[in-house]
Amino acid sequence: MQKKKFVVTPWEVSGEIDYEKLIEEFGVEPITDKLLKRIKKHTKELHMFLRRKFFFSHRDFNHVLDSYERGQKFVLYTGRGPSGHTHLGHIIPWIFTKHLQDVFDAKLYFQMTDDEKFLIKPELTLEQTIGFTYDNALDVIALGFDPKKTKIFSNIEYAKTQYKMALQIAKHIPFSTAKAVFGFNSTSNIGIIFFPAMQAVPAFMAQLFEGQNERCLIPCAVDQEPYWRVARDVAPKLGLHKPAGIYCKFLPGLGQGGKMSASLPETCVYTTDSLEYAKKKVWNAFTGGRATVKEQREKGGIPEICSVYHWLYILFEKDDGKIKEIYRKCKNGEILCGEDKEILANYVNKFLSEHQRKREKAKDLLEKFMVRD
Amino acid sequence: MQKKKFVVTPWEVSGEIDYEKLIEEFGVEPITDKLLKRIKKHTKELHMFLRRKFFFSHRDFNHVLDSYERGQKFVLYTGRGPSGHTHLGHIIPWIFTKHLQDVFDAKLYFQMTDDEKFLIKPELTLEQTIGFTYDNALDVIALGFDPKKTKIFSNIEYAKTQYKMALQIAKHIPFSTAKAVFGFNSTSNIGIIFFPAMQAVPAFMAQLFEGQNERCLIPCAVDQEPYWRVARDVAPKLGLHKPAGIYCKFLPGLGQGGKMSASLPETCVYTTDSLEYAKKKVWNAFTGGRATVKEQREKGGIPEICSVYHWLYILFEKDDGKIKEIYRKCKNGEILCGEDKEILANYVNKFLSEHQRKREKAKDLLEKFMVRD
Repeated sequence: MQKKKFVVTPWEVSGEIDYEKLIEEFGVEPITDKLLKRIKKHTKELHMFLRRKFFFSHRDFNHVLDSYERGQKFVLYTGRGPSGHTHLGHIIPWIFTKHLQDVFDAKLYFQMTDDEKFLIKPELTLEQTIGFTYDNALDVIALGFDPKKTKIFSNIEYAKTQYKMALQIAKHIPFSTAKAVFGFNSTSNIGIIFFPAMQAVPAFMAQLFEGQNERCLIPCAVDQEPYWRVARDVAPKLGLHKPAGIYCKFLPGLGQGGKMSASLPETCVYTTDSLEYAKKKVWNAFTGGRATVKEQREKGGIPEICSVYHWLYILFEKDDGKIKEIYRKCKNGEILCGEDKEILANYVNKFLSEHQRKREKAKDLLEKFMVRD
Repeated sequence: MQKKKFVVTPWEVSGEIDYEKLIEEFGVEPITDKLLKRIKKHTKELHMFLRRKFFFSHRDFNHVLDSYERGQKFVLYTGRGPSGHTHLGHIIPWIFTKHLQDVFDAKLYFQMTDDEKFLIKPELTLEQTIGFTYDNALDVIALGFDPKKTKIFSNIEYAKTQYKMALQIAKHIPFSTAKAVFGFNSTSNIGIIFFPAMQAVPAFMAQLFEGQNERCLIPCAVDQEPYWRVARDVAPKLGLHKPAGIYCKFLPGLGQGGKMSASLPETCVYTTDSLEYAKKKVWNAFTGGRATVKEQREKGGIPEICSVYHWLYILFEKDDGKIKEIYRKCKNGEILCGEDKEILANYVNKFLSEHQRKREKAKDLLEKFMVRD
């Protein structure tokens, strides 16, 4: 089947994404079974995101492991563009980052790119954007990161530290490079043109700022990869290690196809949604079900296009046996969409109620995580 | 006489500058006799730089005076790109700014653009550039600014405060504008493209940061005017007053023609030069003298092209009667270059020894002036 044209850039993700092709286009490496085996040596069990190839590609993760196996720790870096509430698509890389922090005992730098969001969203004020930084930080903290090993910072508030490093990076990024990688043009404002230097900073923080020789690994959705491409170009000019990356796919929304997007709020579940509202969204989800129960029983459903199945597969049904069974039953018409939705709704309900409880507690922990100047 | 082609931009000043033409090209206003009269009402005596039209043009200074005469104070903003030691050309706008602070009881924001200098000088390290900030700040302080009304800051060190404001400004400056005004191209690094937003910040500091309604007046050399053009464009979009400016010419070097330039150190007098070295530079200065004493006595000298005369006229001989007399005597061959040089050397000696004494004392005052975050 001919896939439709797709676009993946830090500013836009659209179309039906061919991840194989993306690996080629972005020049990243696929996560091979050999690499998975090597990771498993360290993590005991492979994380579901790796087992199910939701984290599907990387750059230099093998180099990070080389150093690690020689006894050299590494640091983690991920982040969030705080322009609204957090939805489940956003937290996937954070869940994985938390896993990596646990098994590799790694420090984490978490950058809130409120400067970027302010610069590209005409309607956002500075105060609103910083507000989202603090709101979204609660979701990060609720996931259980170690406050002793995690720094969360707003670019706007942490500018004193970061600007100094960003200047050193920016000095080596000509406009032509930024233009080619990010598609800037004459209407781009001069703040957003500078921003790639700010986003590169935490990739070098341990080395440049804390004088440590630790490599940096960046777990994130693959659309952010162009930023690290630029950071990797600059690294040797500053005598620093290139950042490594490990990249995930996009969580589809509850609608038909495509990345979960805040522009279609009915197809997203936000961490701040009420349990009832989230349940309603699940019940309205697009599935691979047939027109009638009779037809479904006869022909079976199509889990490949079913958002409910995707969510169970990617995020909620951790038991490999059970997810296989759901797939099989769906294909054979042994299970109806309503039953699947109920399974998912229960998982979402459980996740949200726990997360929201932890999110409340996170308010007391904020100051342990946030660094300013 | 046909003047040669000249260039005046924030990055380059060269050729024999036609200031009349520059007023047209830059779209600034000449300082008229009417405006001088109005200024004199407030300053009692007109400053020599105004009497001798060294400060020759402005933008909206009349609006600043309108507000002032209605009882609304204004703030001053000037600065320095710290890429080396301070020479006499640099301090002229600061001397005038000090005068304005005194007579108008105005607060001063003094920006050290160490970020800019680091970004455009390949050979400069961050540490060296910040080093020059502190070195140059001594010269500012030595001029006698009021520590209660003066803030000096390094852009790198004051980034926390300034980045926040710079974002608000940058959001309204498309690359096309920055390109047109500053001549950026594909080789310009992304830091320097952002820099105009940083340089605009202090023009709005009183209004944006301290919540005051005070207008801002920027005394500086005319090559900096493009920055304020951009700041003025942005002002209404932020609901702020446009900054006003008052602009001076360039102090010529002790060589033949042209702005005093650090690239020709023998033609500059630095505030850190030893008295002997400075004297030697004056003795080696280019003058409008004739080939022989005899010829000089017969034809007279040419003060119009004489760097020694220019320095006396612009900076050192405050007595209008005396400077006229020097001009007359030179024209008539009554005075030889050696005598003129001795007059200037004495002034330079007196200035330097006093300045260097105050500069030493300034080291104890630094912390009263420097603001960080």
